[in-house]
Amino acid sequence: MTVSTDEALAKSDAFPLSEKNISAQVRAAQYAVRGEIVIRAGELEEELKKGKKLPYGDSILYCNIGNPQQLGQVPITFFRQVLALCDYPEMMANPHADKIFPKDVLKRAKEYLAAIPGGTGAYTSSQGAPICREHVAAGITHRDHGIKSDPGNIFMSDGASQSVHTILRMLLRGTQDAVLTPIPQYPLYSAALALYNGTLLPYYLDEQNQWALRLDECKSQVDKARSEGQNVRALIVINPGNPTGSVLSEENQKEIVKFCVRESLVLLADEVYQDNIYIAGKTFHSFKRVAVELGKEAEQLVLVSMHSISKGFYGECGRRGGYMEIINLPADVKAQLIKLSSINLCSNVNGQICTAMMMNPPKEGEESYELFAKERQGLLDSLKRRAKLLVTALNKLEGVTCNEAEGALYAMPQLKLPAGAAKAAEESGKPVDFFYCKALLESTGIVTVPGSGFKQAENTYHFRTTILPPEDQIEEVTERLSKFHAEFMKKYSNSS
Amino acid sequence: MTVSTDEALAKSDAFPLSEKNISAQVRAAQYAVRGEIVIRAGELEEELKKGKKLPYGDSILYCNIGNPQQLGQVPITFFRQVLALCDYPEMMANPHADKIFPKDVLKRAKEYLAAIPGGTGAYTSSQGAPICREHVAAGITHRDHGIKSDPGNIFMSDGASQSVHTILRMLLRGTQDAVLTPIPQYPLYSAALALYNGTLLPYYLDEQNQWALRLDECKSQVDKARSEGQNVRALIVINPGNPTGSVLSEENQKEIVKFCVRESLVLLADEVYQDNIYIAGKTFHSFKRVAVELGKEAEQLVLVSMHSISKGFYGECGRRGGYMEIINLPADVKAQLIKLSSINLCSNVNGQICTAMMMNPPKEGEESYELFAKERQGLLDSLKRRAKLLVTALNKLEGVTCNEAEGALYAMPQLKLPAGAAKAAEESGKPVDFFYCKALLESTGIVTVPGSGFKQAENTYHFRTTILPPEDQIEEVTERLSKFHAEFMKKYSNSS
Repeated sequence: MTVSTDEALAKSDAFPLSEKNISAQVRAAQYAVRGEIVIRAGELEEELKKGKKLPYGDSILYCNIGNPQQLGQVPITFFRQVLALCDYPEMMANPHADKIFPKDVLKRAKEYLAAIPGGTGAYTSSQGAPICREHVAAGITHRDHGIKSDPGNIFMSDGASQSVHTILRMLLRGTQDAVLTPIPQYPLYSAALALYNGTLLPYYLDEQNQWALRLDECKSQVDKARSEGQNVRALIVINPGNPTGSVLSEENQKEIVKFCVRESLVLLADEVYQDNIYIAGKTFHSFKRVAVELGKEAEQLVLVSMHSISKGFYGECGRRGGYMEIINLPADVKAQLIKLSSINLCSNVNGQICTAMMMNPPKEGEESYELFAKERQGLLDSLKRRAKLLVTALNKLEGVTCNEAEGALYAMPQLKLPAGAAKAAEESGKPVDFFYCKALLESTGIVTVPGSGFKQAENTYHFRTTILPPEDQIEEVTERLSKFHAEFMKKYSNSS
Repeated sequence: MTVSTDEALAKSDAFPLSEKNISAQVRAAQYAVRGEIVIRAGELEEELKKGKKLPYGDSILYCNIGNPQQLGQVPITFFRQVLALCDYPEMMANPHADKIFPKDVLKRAKEYLAAIPGGTGAYTSSQGAPICREHVAAGITHRDHGIKSDPGNIFMSDGASQSVHTILRMLLRGTQDAVLTPIPQYPLYSAALALYNGTLLPYYLDEQNQWALRLDECKSQVDKARSEGQNVRALIVINPGNPTGSVLSEENQKEIVKFCVRESLVLLADEVYQDNIYIAGKTFHSFKRVAVELGKEAEQLVLVSMHSISKGFYGECGRRGGYMEIINLPADVKAQLIKLSSINLCSNVNGQICTAMMMNPPKEGEESYELFAKERQGLLDSLKRRAKLLVTALNKLEGVTCNEAEGALYAMPQLKLPAGAAKAAEESGKPVDFFYCKALLESTGIVTVPGSGFKQAENTYHFRTTILPPEDQIEEVTERLSKFHAEFMKKYSNSS
């Protein structure tokens, strides 16, 4: 038997597995955040490791994905101390333990271990360990100024991506089921809609007005789709916005809630960036609180609010943890949802515990609070500075306009590129924004995602970059980028 | 807005979410291992917590699922020490670190942290961190007597369940695609086939002959299905068997490989119990080695071998880690598989590291080896004793016959129950094995899974129990069970 050589396989017509005989939905799904440009970046990184000299020195800078700790962001000490103790409880018995761990860390780890039979090594209930759901609910109640959250409405997950898969998997019955999706969108949504055979019903965010969400646009899309026989089932809102970085106003959110009730849509609220807001005067309003405060008008709203430990100031992407809170979930559907979750047994317990701590961090007066607050503030201040610096630099570039990054971890500049670039892109068989991002990677080592990966208004071109390069590098990044951009514009203006 | 009350919802006809308007595949999927009886057990546990007196004292004994650490199994020290250091590397700088951690533990943790940019808090590549795939491949090579495993063929996962979902999700195009599945089977397979809209093509294991896998049976099922226009795509083999506990002979495995090549079927080998064999003279033969040693005859075999950290002697269920090794995966399909994985970003890094250690444990001469070997041997010896004790006790029961538990973590006794029980079950609208397991739970607190949850030959009835109750309890468990069984048989013999 030859192992993984295509030659051997080519021989056989009856070969049991080929791209032609796999699921059409899988073939159709696209996920640009980890697409062709990222794969090319991986190749370049390999070449660098092998000692090859490249124009931009010795490192690839991954701005394609919000993966802060990969770029050197330091984890929250309290979280990691508790997780370490939960994975190796014997340390608590060690005479040196109290020299390594603050009292509240030891207390917290004991609390989780006492409440989770078998600790981090045992399956929990499929919905999640009760204590983790209780800590999450308590955190939501605190966040929402005392509006009660019920642990029975919390579903722990291996990250918000898994929550999205679970909900769409359950909701969608086929291509006649459509889901209102913002454009530009986070590609998880288009990919999941393709996998579960639903239809992406686009609503275009208003780039001229800081990517505003316009309900007249949503309404006309719903009416059009319904007139064509589609069942519009849900509205996806990402707030703060990915990839746009915009933050919704409470007024706008009230209108969105009323719209969902009126049109009988499930509201899928992607709120994973709720801790990432950088603009004075803007704050995060949870759809949960907005809906509850609307009272009777929102009585019928079915709301799925998703959160994750991957973003915020904690950035625990690799841990894969998160939750969704579902309001007004009928009991029979809840039973189906728990059954569906049970087929994957449960989400990883280390991640469940970290999610519980995200929503129930050290409190004032506790031994770890001071360090926790310092770590949080330091990181959020730094992200704020980087967002400002990056967007300012982008807006200085010829043919580039970029809305303010009010929140989240991204900037989404629009590119007006010379006809020569469009021509060259066409010849290469790629959209011009892909062509631009590819050229950017090859000459600077900076990895970004073309706007086409997020979908965008016709005849507009963008790219998305994270604001995550470390503060001591970001100036150099903007310089590299500006230098590349100037050369690119020069080259293709002449060639047009 | 009222939170999660069905009354409010009932009001609205246009309610956006009800059991009637969700995915039919989700409604169809069943997963008995966490089904109705387990839910009832949870209710009883709540009542016990509230101080209610129940006939069997104060505890529910979960024998429905292989969740060893929940039942008190102690984790492997080396694994937990390394994981704790990877989650909180600052400990390594602490002057007391070397008083807590052996040198090879510190060395191993440093090795993983140096190779994984961002450590356990950062996304890895979607296929898995290279160092984890390398350690897994090295472990496979060692297991298979030097037959090389390529890290490029390894796909890290959040447990074997996720691997099964990924492969079936990719493979299946619709109900015309059928997958040969052993009966009895592990319900993950029937559930995933329902979710991905494939057809379960049963092949019946020969209970009279220690649940033997008969290729004449497989062949006739394939011919029948193909004559009816089905595309038979793959053969699922679980070895050691779940729920049967039987272990395949190498001869039988060779025939299975040749059959898959002849019939152009992907071989899906569920090998998560490869470390769990309790019978003198029986050993685990990986399908990888069997196929490679067949040489030319197996040149065309597409093999997916799945493994997990949840079982074996480590039992790290809650960590959610595992891998699949895929042999002869065409490059274009591999690209599709990586894209599909990338939509979930990556599997949790803590679990990836634990999986790497499972396949690359401490070696002789290393400081941790002695303790590791002692922990492993102690656990496997204990499981062997428990398997023997449980099966012996089951075979003493009136109307009960149970094949030897040669491997895995389960016994699957057949029940011949009185007509009175069949009648009572029918009146309750449930299969008689469900009726039996429910009665067992109510009067003993022992949670098992009815054979109907795994599917079984017509007019046969079984239940599955794990062999995992702690050694100091297992005698009492068998006594409780025997007492219940005698009363059950007496009651329904009279009433018939």
